Amino acid sequence: MTETAQRPTLEAVAARAGVSRATVSRVVNGGDGVREPLAERVRRAVEELGYVPNQAARSLVTKRHGAVAVVIAEPETRVFADPFFALQLRGISKELTAQDNQLVLLLTEGRDDHTRVARYLAGGHVDGALVFSLHLDDPLPGLIRGAGLPTVFGGRPGWSDGEAGVAYVDSDNRGGAREAVRHLVGLGRTRIAHLTGPLDQTSAADRLDGYRDVMGGADARLVVESDFTPAGGERAMRALLDRCPDVDAVFAANDLTASGALRVLRERGRRVPEDVAVVGFDDMLPVAEATDPPLTTVRQDIEEMGRIMARLLLRRLDPRTPEETPAGVVLPTTLVRRAST
Amino acid sequence: MTETAQRPTLEAVAARAGVSRATVSRVVNGGDGVREPLAERVRRAVEELGYVPNQAARSLVTKRHGAVAVVIAEPETRVFADPFFALQLRGISKELTAQDNQLVLLLTEGRDDHTRVARYLAGGHVDGALVFSLHLDDPLPGLIRGAGLPTVFGGRPGWSDGEAGVAYVDSDNRGGAREAVRHLVGLGRTRIAHLTGPLDQTSAADRLDGYRDVMGGADARLVVESDFTPAGGERAMRALLDRCPDVDAVFAANDLTASGALRVLRERGRRVPEDVAVVGFDDMLPVAEATDPPLTTVRQDIEEMGRIMARLLLRRLDPRTPEETPAGVVLPTTLVRRAST
Repeated sequence: MTETAQRPTLEAVAARAGVSRATVSRVVNGGDGVREPLAERVRRAVEELGYVPNQAARSLVTKRHGAVAVVIAEPETRVFADPFFALQLRGISKELTAQDNQLVLLLTEGRDDHTRVARYLAGGHVDGALVFSLHLDDPLPGLIRGAGLPTVFGGRPGWSDGEAGVAYVDSDNRGGAREAVRHLVGLGRTRIAHLTGPLDQTSAADRLDGYRDVMGGADARLVVESDFTPAGGERAMRALLDRCPDVDAVFAANDLTASGALRVLRERGRRVPEDVAVVGFDDMLPVAEATDPPLTTVRQDIEEMGRIMARLLLRRLDPRTPEETPAGVVLPTTLVRRAST
Repeated sequence: MTETAQRPTLEAVAARAGVSRATVSRVVNGGDGVREPLAERVRRAVEELGYVPNQAARSLVTKRHGAVAVVIAEPETRVFADPFFALQLRGISKELTAQDNQLVLLLTEGRDDHTRVARYLAGGHVDGALVFSLHLDDPLPGLIRGAGLPTVFGGRPGWSDGEAGVAYVDSDNRGGAREAVRHLVGLGRTRIAHLTGPLDQTSAADRLDGYRDVMGGADARLVVESDFTPAGGERAMRALLDRCPDVDAVFAANDLTASGALRVLRERGRRVPEDVAVVGFDDMLPVAEATDPPLTTVRQDIEEMGRIMARLLLRRLDPRTPEETPAGVVLPTTLVRRAST
C-alpha cells in the first residue's frame, strides 16, 4: 500500500482539528475527558485525513498483520458437520502455521452475515483471504473485491463477469465425473442416475456436466437435484426410486450423498452392487470406507487443495514475488474402486 | 493491491446521496439523529456503490470492532474431531450473530502457536475473547491478561494466583461426578473405577475430585489417567482390565472416553451392564445414544455454556453496563440413565 510514505501523522490530525497532540491521542485512545464538540472535531479530522491509529500503524511498517482469514460461505452448523471443511482447513492450517501466519476463521450463521464478514475483511485485520464453498448469487466475492484484499478461492468461482485475474484452486470435477460414469457404463449399466449437489455451486454444476458428457441424451428423470448432505442423499434416492424404479446405477455428487443413497437402497431391499451400483465423489475418509458396502468413489486430495490455496496466497503477499496474473490451479482426480460397483 | 484506489469513499456516498460527509458517517455508524428519508437515501447510496465503511474510522466512533475472538487451546485437528467444541461454538455463534458481532475463530496447530495467537489478540483486531480448553501450564491466559483484553473463559481456569476477578462459565463437574459415582454405588457396585481426563485441565481434575468425594480411600489402581478421546478410553480400559480384572463399574470422564471403554469391554467379552456398568459425562449426542449399549451419563448443556460465555462478554463490552467484578457462573448437571448401568 503506497500510503505508507504519506501516512498522516498525529501532528497533522492535531493541526487540522486545531487542538493539541495530547487531545488527539486521548480521543483516539478512548476519548475520555475530552469535551464533545472538540472530540467531534478530532474525529472528523481523523476521518478526513485517513489517519490510522496505533496498532494499525505498527502493521503499516511491516505491511503485514501475519494473519489470513478463512471464510467458508456456509452456516457454522454445516462447517462442523461436513468433514470436507475440516480436511481443507487442515491443509490450510498446516501451511499457514509453517510460515507463522495466524489462521482467522470467520464463522457465520448464514448468508445474512456476509456483509459483516466483508466489513471485517476490509477492516485491516488480515493480509488476505481464503474463501470457499461459494454459491452463485452470493454477494461475498463482490464485497471482498471492493475491499481490495488479496484472495484465493477454493473451487472455481462462478460469477458471470469473467474469471480472468482470479486466483483459485479446484479439482477436475468434470473429468472426475466423466470417469465415474464411464466406469458404470463399462460395467454394463444402462439406467445410470445422477444425484447432484447444489447447482448454484460450480463443483456441483461441473460434475453434472461431466455426467452429461457421457450420458448425453439420457432420460432427464434420472437426474435428481440434491445438496451434498446425507439427509439430502436419502431424499433424492427415494424420489429417484419412485420415479425410475428400473435404475441400475447411481453416481452421487459426493460421498455424503452416496451414504444417504446407500441407506435408502438397503431399506428398499435393493442389493448394492448387484441391483444398483453406486459411485461417490471425494474419497472422504472414514465415510467412503465405512459405508456398507464400501464406496467406489472419485478421489480428490482435499487437504492438498487447502495447502495449495494457502501457499498461493502467501506467495502473492510476499513482496519479493514478481507480479503475475492470478490464475486457476486444477488438480487431477482418480477413481478408487471398492465394493459398491 | 491496487484495487484499494477504486474502493468507494465516504465522499462518493455523500455526493451520490446529496448529503454531507458527517451525515453519511452518522448513518453508517448507527444512524442516530438523522431523519428517516435522509437516512434511507444514504443507505441506498451505500448499497449502490458497494461502500464498505472503514473499520478504523468506524471503531473510532463506536469504540468497537464488532468482533469477538474464540480461542480453543487445542490443535486444530482435535477441534474438528471432538463434537464438544462444535456444540460450544454453536452456542457462541448464535449469541454473537444475534448481536451482530463477528465470530473470529483463531486456530492453531499446537501450543507453540499460542504466542502468535496472543499477538493477534493484542493487535486491536477484536473487542474481547472467549477462551476454552485451557491446560494448567499454558501461557495463554497470562499473555491475554497482558494484552488487557476483556475475556471470558470456558471452564474454571486453574492458575495458582487466584481466580478472583476472572469471568468464566463452567458446569458443576465435581457435583456431577459425585452423582455418577453414587448412582453406581446405589446399584451395589463395589469395584468402581475412574478413567480420568487430562489432569492438567480443571474439568478433569474436578471430576476426579468428585469421584474421590464418594470413593474416599478406594484402591488407587482403580484410577487410570486418560485424555478425553475414544482412543485414550480404549488404552485406559485395557490397562484397567489388566490391573484390576475384578472391576465391576467404570465412571469415564467423558462420553468419548466411555465409547472407547465400551469397545474394549465388548472385545474382552465383558457384558455391559451385567459384568461392568459404565457411566460417561457430557451427554454428547449422537455419541451417548449411539454406543452399544446406550450410555448412562452426566448431562451438561454445552451449547448453553457457549451462549452464556458470549452473553457475559458482550455485557462487559457494552458501555451501558455498570462496572462489576467478573465472576464464575457454574451450571448444574443432571444424570441421564440409559442401558449401560
